[in-house]
Amino acid sequence: MKISELGEFAFIRRLASRFSQDLPKDIQGIGDDCAIIPYLDHTSLLITTDLLIENVHFIRSKISAQDLGYKSIAVNLSDIAAMGGCPLYTLISIGLPSDIDVEWIDHFFDGMEELAKQENVLLLGGDTTFASEIAINFVIIGKIETSLIKKRSQAKAGDIICCTNNLGDSGAGLKIILEDLPLTDIAKQLIQKHNRPFPAIHEGQWLASQNGVHAMIDVSDGIDSDIRHIMEQSHCGAVIDLDRLPLSADLDQIAKLYNWNAAEIAATAGEDYCLLVTIDPIEYEKINSLYNQTFKKPLFKIGQITDQANKLSYLKDSFPVQLQNRGFDHFKK
Amino acid sequence: MKISELGEFAFIRRLASRFSQDLPKDIQGIGDDCAIIPYLDHTSLLITTDLLIENVHFIRSKISAQDLGYKSIAVNLSDIAAMGGCPLYTLISIGLPSDIDVEWIDHFFDGMEELAKQENVLLLGGDTTFASEIAINFVIIGKIETSLIKKRSQAKAGDIICCTNNLGDSGAGLKIILEDLPLTDIAKQLIQKHNRPFPAIHEGQWLASQNGVHAMIDVSDGIDSDIRHIMEQSHCGAVIDLDRLPLSADLDQIAKLYNWNAAEIAATAGEDYCLLVTIDPIEYEKINSLYNQTFKKPLFKIGQITDQANKLSYLKDSFPVQLQNRGFDHFKK
Repeated sequence: MKISELGEFAFIRRLASRFSQDLPKDIQGIGDDCAIIPYLDHTSLLITTDLLIENVHFIRSKISAQDLGYKSIAVNLSDIAAMGGCPLYTLISIGLPSDIDVEWIDHFFDGMEELAKQENVLLLGGDTTFASEIAINFVIIGKIETSLIKKRSQAKAGDIICCTNNLGDSGAGLKIILEDLPLTDIAKQLIQKHNRPFPAIHEGQWLASQNGVHAMIDVSDGIDSDIRHIMEQSHCGAVIDLDRLPLSADLDQIAKLYNWNAAEIAATAGEDYCLLVTIDPIEYEKINSLYNQTFKKPLFKIGQITDQANKLSYLKDSFPVQLQNRGFDHFKK
Repeated sequence: MKISELGEFAFIRRLASRFSQDLPKDIQGIGDDCAIIPYLDHTSLLITTDLLIENVHFIRSKISAQDLGYKSIAVNLSDIAAMGGCPLYTLISIGLPSDIDVEWIDHFFDGMEELAKQENVLLLGGDTTFASEIAINFVIIGKIETSLIKKRSQAKAGDIICCTNNLGDSGAGLKIILEDLPLTDIAKQLIQKHNRPFPAIHEGQWLASQNGVHAMIDVSDGIDSDIRHIMEQSHCGAVIDLDRLPLSADLDQIAKLYNWNAAEIAATAGEDYCLLVTIDPIEYEKINSLYNQTFKKPLFKIGQITDQANKLSYLKDSFPVQLQNRGFDHFKK
């Protein structure tokens, strides 16, 4: 069987069942946004790693070196955010074609450093090698108070499903890039959202401090994929109300212009790098109000966790609907 | 300027001068085999990462999936060995073409697991993605008693330079693969050395426990490159006696057959993954004798550290000589 027939998530499940069976209790292996290992008293280390490949994750001619450096570390920091952690250190492996300009590399590191400095993340090392296409692997190490860790496995039936930001802007930005659409101001804004996602580190830490917040994940593959990860780990189901997905005015406008299904882009395109959280329904109003005071934006309520294991339903105009597309799977076409 | 003109090591120096200036004292950034961060009392964590790219580090048709899995983790464990540490955890990012068989991947993980189990290393996570050529990035996290860490920067003028195993077998194995030479028993043995290097973890831990051992590095790029890393970090020079480089009978025999310069292969080809250490001359005999009792093999004395900063000399028949080749640099041809 080819890996493309198996699919990314079945492949990860195979690895998890092979390597995560006999781990000590205080260690989290495959299956969440970060691995967790014990650290100092009441504290754990979070470790995450992500591989970006040219012409798979980005097209060199379509993104500046600076934005690529920024985005490469941002998507990794987002995994630390998804556990509620505080990022500390990074290591980067980079494979480069030998005709790459040193200036390009300097700009790449400018972009990386911009976000690393802002979040006090120290670059501690890595590896460099020749490669025919650019390959970038970041490792981020962060820490968190052990009792505050929010796992994908902690959702409970009845939980309110929220996201922390608009969905679909990044996906629309990618469509504009791939389809070479005119670079209007709105188009540029959406491309910017795709090229410079901002990891929700502070939101993640705040949410982690709330007992009523149960499960957390970052929106990387699209909520259609990401909510399934929570469902799988928490043995539950979910209902998502497509009418409630928060859409930016930019996405709304461009979707009308090109006749795109904005809700579908919001649900499946991914790379938004906001957080998807499940919250105890009794606590939701209080948490949302405090969150709003702190971050000057709401927790967008988009659905609810159910006890129907592995059943994901969508509503539109209060009626059940099917999506045309699914969230992203790296090995399936 | 192109990266190929700058070269791998100048590139790393640029990054080090940019990112390692203002690190806290108890943190080691770019410039050694591993990054070091504080852990529990008197203990530090070691972190290393290495990126292997198809057709750069290996040719898919020339190495079994199992051997590739074994080698990929071995070369990373070797960096932990070079600091004297004990490896604990690993994460792996893997980029795979979509036509790869699941069976191939299973065999890759068989090889990885073989060595991971032997050294009690737990796989805790990683990342999977599509890629047009295979890309493999390992992260290893290990620990060490902080006072025992052996850095590249600790060599002193007068130190005896030793290696812990034969040099050049791996390089000869690679030549046999690349030149498609007949697969005699000897050729197969040498290829095995190239495809299944054994990281000197236990030797590294033992050497780290000896006060008289000063600097340590693993032989990845060839001692010609690797001793330069020690020289640069320790602000010293070195003399290497080519007649003293330990050569296996297999390398000796095949070098005669094909008229290869065995000493030059031993000095420059790399990927031996034994350790290169510098030892206080007063302690050398005692340490060598204890090492011999413990590991049933000697520390091979191959040269001496000098106070002539950045001057590397080679001797042959007691006369200074120049090498034709240099150790490996990923960006230079």
